[in-house]
Amino acid sequence: MQTKEERKTIEVCFSPHSFPLYPHQESIVVVIDVLRATSSICAALHYGVERILPVASVHEARNYQSKGFLCAAERQAQKVEGFDLGNSPSEYQNPKLKGKIVVFTTTNGTQAIRAAREAYRIVIGSFSNLTVLCEWLSHQNKNIILLCAGWRDFFNLEDTLCAGAIAHTLEKTNLFETNYDSTLASKTLYEVAKNDLAGFMENSSHFKRLEKLNLADDVKYCLTLDLAPVVPILEGNYLIPFKSK
Amino acid sequence: MQTKEERKTIEVCFSPHSFPLYPHQESIVVVIDVLRATSSICAALHYGVERILPVASVHEARNYQSKGFLCAAERQAQKVEGFDLGNSPSEYQNPKLKGKIVVFTTTNGTQAIRAAREAYRIVIGSFSNLTVLCEWLSHQNKNIILLCAGWRDFFNLEDTLCAGAIAHTLEKTNLFETNYDSTLASKTLYEVAKNDLAGFMENSSHFKRLEKLNLADDVKYCLTLDLAPVVPILEGNYLIPFKSK
Repeated sequence: MQTKEERKTIEVCFSPHSFPLYPHQESIVVVIDVLRATSSICAALHYGVERILPVASVHEARNYQSKGFLCAAERQAQKVEGFDLGNSPSEYQNPKLKGKIVVFTTTNGTQAIRAAREAYRIVIGSFSNLTVLCEWLSHQNKNIILLCAGWRDFFNLEDTLCAGAIAHTLEKTNLFETNYDSTLASKTLYEVAKNDLAGFMENSSHFKRLEKLNLADDVKYCLTLDLAPVVPILEGNYLIPFKSK
Repeated sequence: MQTKEERKTIEVCFSPHSFPLYPHQESIVVVIDVLRATSSICAALHYGVERILPVASVHEARNYQSKGFLCAAERQAQKVEGFDLGNSPSEYQNPKLKGKIVVFTTTNGTQAIRAAREAYRIVIGSFSNLTVLCEWLSHQNKNIILLCAGWRDFFNLEDTLCAGAIAHTLEKTNLFETNYDSTLASKTLYEVAKNDLAGFMENSSHFKRLEKLNLADDVKYCLTLDLAPVVPILEGNYLIPFKSK
């Protein structure tokens, strides 16, 4: 067990809009966009996509598409017309994608990755990779910022719950200081919600938005723990699965 | 009971930094800085201060002081040297202040008031005026934004709990739609904490900061409900107690 002084910190940032306030150049930033970008990224890399190139705009994605890349684009929770793939984790559980490179842009998630570009390291968090991610984080000996992608720069519940789940899990290692207000709040919310995440989320904005679009199965997938045990890590411009050397 | 369409909304904004994202020109904004600015403002107006002039900078406050005004200034949780008053609710329970005008600047609270200056209406919220404030808000037929002053633009727990208390109380009227993610989160946190606010706050950043400065009595005051039943409302540049006509 480490002394209080040796412990690293875990802070939660509720929106990319607030992220510049956080000193992040020496921190590992975990980008979280549970519904659905970071859940889809984990699914894709777990099921065999070789690497993902996150880009912030549909325009950039179109440029890559015109050069022959396989491209995924989502806006307003729907696949953008003319693209190969959208933002549903189910689309990425497809053997045909094995070994492929996918260019990827979504409403909130890929913007959050861009916002964090000056961090020491960027990794991807979701309920799908909770256990392996926390295991990996506990070995890095670095301060951690859990960056919630939110919805158009607003606070959202599902990313906060996931941040709370990560803090709740890492706290048990005694390696981290978690008593920042945003971390305390996220942990408490997760502890209230953990036995019935979907029930707790029922009244939330994005949950309803996705249910209206008949995406209840996606929501269920995204709120389930450890379905895609992989740690996506940004190396250069690409997200790849972390592999211990 | 109103139909869903007739209901007004209650949203929580966790930081003045995020406030410009919220459409606020037609909304009532409740500025909340529990530890301690808005608790002190309620105390002052309840105990007989005639009006308060909130100013954002110490510089502005000094200008007023040089013109003979009674001035209060707090930075880093301490009274700024050379000023008449600081930011402790106990200072304002003083019969000598009855009928006076007080110029007031604090680290976070008065900045939040400034951030909200284009709102339809600005009122002051704290645990000290919870019941009368909610009673007043329930009669306005306006959308409400609960603006947490936070700490240097970061999320903080005590303001969020107070926002949660307001949403929790107003929800019972059935006049409001509260299912925004930030409102749901605040309400849930308040419901977890309400039976022991101080115990819940124990690990929070500002609570510790104030305890180190021997301000535990202030904290206790600020977390107690309905000690200063007044609705401070901004009229022109001044906060005055709302009086029904």
